[in-house]
Amino acid sequence: MVDDFINTMPNKNMQAEAAASVYQDQLTKPSGSLGMLEELAVFLAGWQNSERPVIETAQAIIFAGNHGICEQGVNPYPQEVTQLMVSNFENGGAAMNQLCTLSGAELTVKPLSLDSPTQDFTQTKAMSMTELLDAMSAGIKSVNRSANIVLLGEMGIGNSTVSSALAASVFGGRVADWVGVGTGSDKKGVAHKIGIIEEGIAKHGLCSDLSAILAFGGREQAAICGAILAARSASIPVLLDGFICTAAAAPLYALSPSLLDHCLVGHKSAEPGHQKLLQSMNKKPILDLNMRLGEGTGAALALSILKAAVACHNHMATFEELGINN
Amino acid sequence: MVDDFINTMPNKNMQAEAAASVYQDQLTKPSGSLGMLEELAVFLAGWQNSERPVIETAQAIIFAGNHGICEQGVNPYPQEVTQLMVSNFENGGAAMNQLCTLSGAELTVKPLSLDSPTQDFTQTKAMSMTELLDAMSAGIKSVNRSANIVLLGEMGIGNSTVSSALAASVFGGRVADWVGVGTGSDKKGVAHKIGIIEEGIAKHGLCSDLSAILAFGGREQAAICGAILAARSASIPVLLDGFICTAAAAPLYALSPSLLDHCLVGHKSAEPGHQKLLQSMNKKPILDLNMRLGEGTGAALALSILKAAVACHNHMATFEELGINN
Repeated sequence: MVDDFINTMPNKNMQAEAAASVYQDQLTKPSGSLGMLEELAVFLAGWQNSERPVIETAQAIIFAGNHGICEQGVNPYPQEVTQLMVSNFENGGAAMNQLCTLSGAELTVKPLSLDSPTQDFTQTKAMSMTELLDAMSAGIKSVNRSANIVLLGEMGIGNSTVSSALAASVFGGRVADWVGVGTGSDKKGVAHKIGIIEEGIAKHGLCSDLSAILAFGGREQAAICGAILAARSASIPVLLDGFICTAAAAPLYALSPSLLDHCLVGHKSAEPGHQKLLQSMNKKPILDLNMRLGEGTGAALALSILKAAVACHNHMATFEELGINN
Repeated sequence: MVDDFINTMPNKNMQAEAAASVYQDQLTKPSGSLGMLEELAVFLAGWQNSERPVIETAQAIIFAGNHGICEQGVNPYPQEVTQLMVSNFENGGAAMNQLCTLSGAELTVKPLSLDSPTQDFTQTKAMSMTELLDAMSAGIKSVNRSANIVLLGEMGIGNSTVSSALAASVFGGRVADWVGVGTGSDKKGVAHKIGIIEEGIAKHGLCSDLSAILAFGGREQAAICGAILAARSASIPVLLDGFICTAAAAPLYALSPSLLDHCLVGHKSAEPGHQKLLQSMNKKPILDLNMRLGEGTGAALALSILKAAVACHNHMATFEELGINN
């Protein structure tokens, strides 16, 4: 049944991709000299099914959730900060607002039952199946199906702990290798996070599908999975943000790596687990600016690079136009 | 006399820098979580002498020159391509045009005596003192002294060979470590470039000041040095592009590393010599997109990151405004 589901998903158009690649070599530059910009233009051509991809409508979505694991003191901030930051997004005061304005992304903010945190995963599963499906459904419905690209971001006090747990649950290995300072834990705090996640893994075991999200939560991770699948079903390429977003997508990767073929990663987080996660999921981040904020900020910055790729692809002169015999 | 000259140059305002740094920690994000964006905002504050730096006017300059060393067959393209690319810049068809439009930079194109290439540096010095000073002067005059930031780029068939020679001349070491494919040399072409540069170094020796440009040329390198000093004299921060621009600035670094304190490097080039040059000059590039085009394209892309840094710095809400006790 899962295989049937995966097989219904559209794939990139390889003719459009090949045509875009041929066209790139006619532009007035040494072949390959625009490096990643060339790769990104060709990638977008494949997923947009057009030799000449466009980014006119870029939608950025921030999903916000609260986490029962905060009862274990894994984060120095109180959970109320999640709602305060949602208000900040709505009032235009967060980093993500400035970056969306600058890169021309339309921002959608989706708080997910912030008054009902998920369960503490050291005690029980973080979410019920109903909660998981509700959150996935919210993610699916949030996607603007006429967007040319969708950027995914998140906010949720405690969700770096959840993300490390998801990564450890999907890819195994030493828990400590997946854990960093998050929003600002000290050395003792990091050690505490590691212990809590080890408890969780001992309780729920390794997971190779969405059961990882059932076990460790939270709602924003489920919504991100829903949005990734909704974008895929509409052949819309996706730009994931950093560590938390990539970890949220890991259970989909475990189901089938191909489910993330339409996803780019905007930024390599300063969280040490992200590099390991990117390698495990065979993704190359576009930017590396030593950031670790989340919200979607790495994706919003990378959108400028994607727009640059598209602008060069569509508007540069060709060698023929310039009178150079390539 | 050189020391007097260096001492007349303005330095960053450390009070403004410190004030910007304190202000950063009041913004609604974990301290340090915007990584390089925070560093860039603070850097700009210091050089613009303002706790709240702005980027309203960004000037991008492309200097173009031709090189006598092309007589040695170091580049697969004919020198006429330099003029054709200048026409392309003027007509809006190059990659740099698209990137300047996207990032809001005003583009100035300065061809420098393209009909009179410099001399072949295996035979004699590439430039006379008069030619050097004329080209530096053109660079100085090109700078818009009311710009908030100046981006420097270049075009010149053969100038990756010139750049490798400059780097080898200033920093020494094995010539082969400074040489890459440039606009498209094959393995044999790279070996030929290495041999030609070794001939040049044997003839002119190592140089620790602008005599490196006299020896190896060309005019666009001299103009870049002039523009860097003109921007510095007006306390305008500079965004250098990639390998060619960084190599052009190397003789200034040799005079005094402090002469480049106001300079950022936009992009780490795919040219292998650039990494070595950045390490030698203690510069950290903003982007790494596997590009090797030049023109200023890496600087124009990095301008979006600088604008993002400034937008977050100036427009984010503070913790106090959000009602969070930081």
